[in-house]
Amino acid sequence: MAEKKLVEAITPMDEDFAKWYTDIVKKAELCDYSGVRGCMVIEPYGYALWENIRDSLDRRFKELGHENVSMPMFIPESLLQREKDHVEGFAPEVAWVTHGGSEKLAERLCVRPTSETLFCDYYARKLQSWRDLPKLYNQWCSVVRWEKTTRPFLRSVEFHWQEGHTMHETETEAREETERMLNVYADFCEKELAIPVVKGRKTDKEMFAGAVDTYTIEALMHDGKALQSGTSHFFGDGFARAFEIQYTGKDNQVRYPFQTSWGMSTRIIGGIIMTHGDDNGLVLPPAVAPVQVMIVPIAMHKPGVLDAANALCERLKGVCRVKVDATDNSPGWKFAQHEMKGVPLRIEIGPKDIAKNQCVAVRRDNRAKTFESLDELETRIPQLLQEVHDGMYAKALERRERMTYSVTTMDDMKETADNKPGFIKALWCGELACEEQIKEVAGLSSRCMPFEQEELSDVCVCCGRKAKKMVYWGKAY
Amino acid sequence: MAEKKLVEAITPMDEDFAKWYTDIVKKAELCDYSGVRGCMVIEPYGYALWENIRDSLDRRFKELGHENVSMPMFIPESLLQREKDHVEGFAPEVAWVTHGGSEKLAERLCVRPTSETLFCDYYARKLQSWRDLPKLYNQWCSVVRWEKTTRPFLRSVEFHWQEGHTMHETETEAREETERMLNVYADFCEKELAIPVVKGRKTDKEMFAGAVDTYTIEALMHDGKALQSGTSHFFGDGFARAFEIQYTGKDNQVRYPFQTSWGMSTRIIGGIIMTHGDDNGLVLPPAVAPVQVMIVPIAMHKPGVLDAANALCERLKGVCRVKVDATDNSPGWKFAQHEMKGVPLRIEIGPKDIAKNQCVAVRRDNRAKTFESLDELETRIPQLLQEVHDGMYAKALERRERMTYSVTTMDDMKETADNKPGFIKALWCGELACEEQIKEVAGLSSRCMPFEQEELSDVCVCCGRKAKKMVYWGKAY
Repeated sequence: MAEKKLVEAITPMDEDFAKWYTDIVKKAELCDYSGVRGCMVIEPYGYALWENIRDSLDRRFKELGHENVSMPMFIPESLLQREKDHVEGFAPEVAWVTHGGSEKLAERLCVRPTSETLFCDYYARKLQSWRDLPKLYNQWCSVVRWEKTTRPFLRSVEFHWQEGHTMHETETEAREETERMLNVYADFCEKELAIPVVKGRKTDKEMFAGAVDTYTIEALMHDGKALQSGTSHFFGDGFARAFEIQYTGKDNQVRYPFQTSWGMSTRIIGGIIMTHGDDNGLVLPPAVAPVQVMIVPIAMHKPGVLDAANALCERLKGVCRVKVDATDNSPGWKFAQHEMKGVPLRIEIGPKDIAKNQCVAVRRDNRAKTFESLDELETRIPQLLQEVHDGMYAKALERRERMTYSVTTMDDMKETADNKPGFIKALWCGELACEEQIKEVAGLSSRCMPFEQEELSDVCVCCGRKAKKMVYWGKAY
Repeated sequence: MAEKKLVEAITPMDEDFAKWYTDIVKKAELCDYSGVRGCMVIEPYGYALWENIRDSLDRRFKELGHENVSMPMFIPESLLQREKDHVEGFAPEVAWVTHGGSEKLAERLCVRPTSETLFCDYYARKLQSWRDLPKLYNQWCSVVRWEKTTRPFLRSVEFHWQEGHTMHETETEAREETERMLNVYADFCEKELAIPVVKGRKTDKEMFAGAVDTYTIEALMHDGKALQSGTSHFFGDGFARAFEIQYTGKDNQVRYPFQTSWGMSTRIIGGIIMTHGDDNGLVLPPAVAPVQVMIVPIAMHKPGVLDAANALCERLKGVCRVKVDATDNSPGWKFAQHEMKGVPLRIEIGPKDIAKNQCVAVRRDNRAKTFESLDELETRIPQLLQEVHDGMYAKALERRERMTYSVTTMDDMKETADNKPGFIKALWCGELACEEQIKEVAGLSSRCMPFEQEELSDVCVCCGRKAKKMVYWGKAY
């Protein structure tokens, strides 16, 4: 970027959170609106971030034996209709292709909103014997859902994701896979994105269309709203029966396999922004930041400074993603610009530093500044990046804990929902009626029934009957 | 693959080339037909091959300063119509989205057949100053062209590709970029895929819709037909004018930038099959083969054999993509199976080999068999893979040269076209009428005007007037 622009201030978070969010998206150059309603242009910086997320997840999937494939982007209408719940869930929000060139199609095709039906169609043709199982397939692609109201990354008509679709001999194996992949997402969020998550199961009301069980990881954003950050579904053999997918078991009996699917999308970029960002801009987790270390030469035109900065950059290329900002902008402008873009670590190096065989390291997350010997940077930089990660995670966890409330009465629930943004933990009887009433009265949806249950009470917060589950409730993106 | 299947013979190439091709595609498990007309399911082995191609090209693009982005998959009809030649070329073969959910759209959207219009729309909003140039963007995606007749990889309704779209200050810079990227494709084909190519410029008739100049690399398949394997287009400022893309130059004048685009697609997988494959199946270039070395234990159930094979595999993981086939199929079955899948190198290891501290290496390309000391495999395997690559390239080049003919009269041209599959070199006056007559009389299209011109004659093979260019003619996929 040879270009010189003003680093304009962004709207403070407390003033207008939604505007703060879109300011960051635009000014950190993550994405831009396109001429197509609800579709984004993901710009180089945003796409590099997504590539790092993709590569990291992809490595985890492959280590667990998954293989990537590519299914068609179109689903014939009759195929979408094979599983009753699924079509009811998705048909109202798909884009329909009706013409190819100048000809009207005999059958409409929808642009995939998700690909269960395509995978099922394929598995029905391919599976024959128990020797073919398990099938552990994944695909990276974009999907389309005709949303009315859209927001960059959080809700868009087209979005990028991965969708894993697996088939197994037994229910136990499929359930293990469902849970294993939820744990992959949770571990990825915590270890790479520094985002603490609550793991749990969705209520029937919030379940994926066609699933037997949906598991989710829920994260808490700066403004106290929840973000569903990844989901993993157990389908039982429902789709298999609807699509007549059968195989011959070890016992020579013809059987239906058990199925899972699981997905994480570009939505998680919205989660990164709203978990870590501040009034100076984006704050990126080191593991996925396109640039982890930005070297800013000080008094750049003095002899030896730029050379020292470039030499440092070359040395560090083996241990991190590093760049030198050698543009003719002022150091102050550069500091602000790279803070806006969330670069985890800034290294300043000027004539005085060179004389002392040192440089200055400034962390993005807390602006902590240290002097570092030039001799030990290959070991120090990874340590500093780890400290940034740990600091970000600790801060996000502390905030989530501070913003999580427990309630036992509806009055308290409504009062808390109205005045204290965050997660609300409360017991629930398991009835849809109560879930709907909580939505109506307090404006909260059930986020999940966490794996880690707590005994806050023994009766439902809404009806007072015997409680079945402790639930995280919240307002959600 | 725990699964045991018969390795069925494939149709010999000489008997039915088209059937040979589809046999390989299916039996090597590269892709499968889907329930959607003209759309493929790319299976794990085919997709792993595509991932290797993608990663290798992507590295080359990034080294040259290109950045990846993502544009929407839809193009509003009015946007597609902005550049006259472009819309004429593509409108007849696009898929139209007319409804979102149950609502009819106010404006139809086509599923992108290529994304010049989307990039132009974006650049029109973004470009302001000469400091913003050059823009060197690329995207990996799938595109849709409503083809009537389709064949796996070679011509499908949906296909994967990358499309680079760049903007430059001057015509010279843009022309240099066009040529640079053509050279990247040519180098990639020769160095990684072992496919020799002819580089040249397309005639006006064969040019991309909306381009000023289209450059191409053309490869010759086993059956003597040509495959356009990658193209690079110079657009001048035609699109920029149609889309009102302007910037302020160094001289403070408002100017139109100059544009290029360039693409390579999954079609190249068809090129790999038809350049290198034989009657035993696929033959994969080592650089992109999902598995480069397959270790087959001999007398696997004898003590120590499987352990030795696994230990060898672990040792070699640092230097190649290697696997052990420990299934309970016979060695002979395994040999045939991995030959079908085109694995470049097979390592056999049995009790006798272990006793002699050796293994057997068998090349896929020529079945050459050598005994290799176990001590030196880390250096020998990369050498052997290089030898496989070199052997494949030499064989393909020898065949192309043998199947390339020069003609100076129409009688000779027709006679050659009818009886000798291959490239035909002949001089041409530059007139469309002659190009069309050559198509009609001899069934040949112009493949390219090669950069390396030869003086075979000084008159047009068709009309006898003064010749302007030596052209490669051929029948093409």
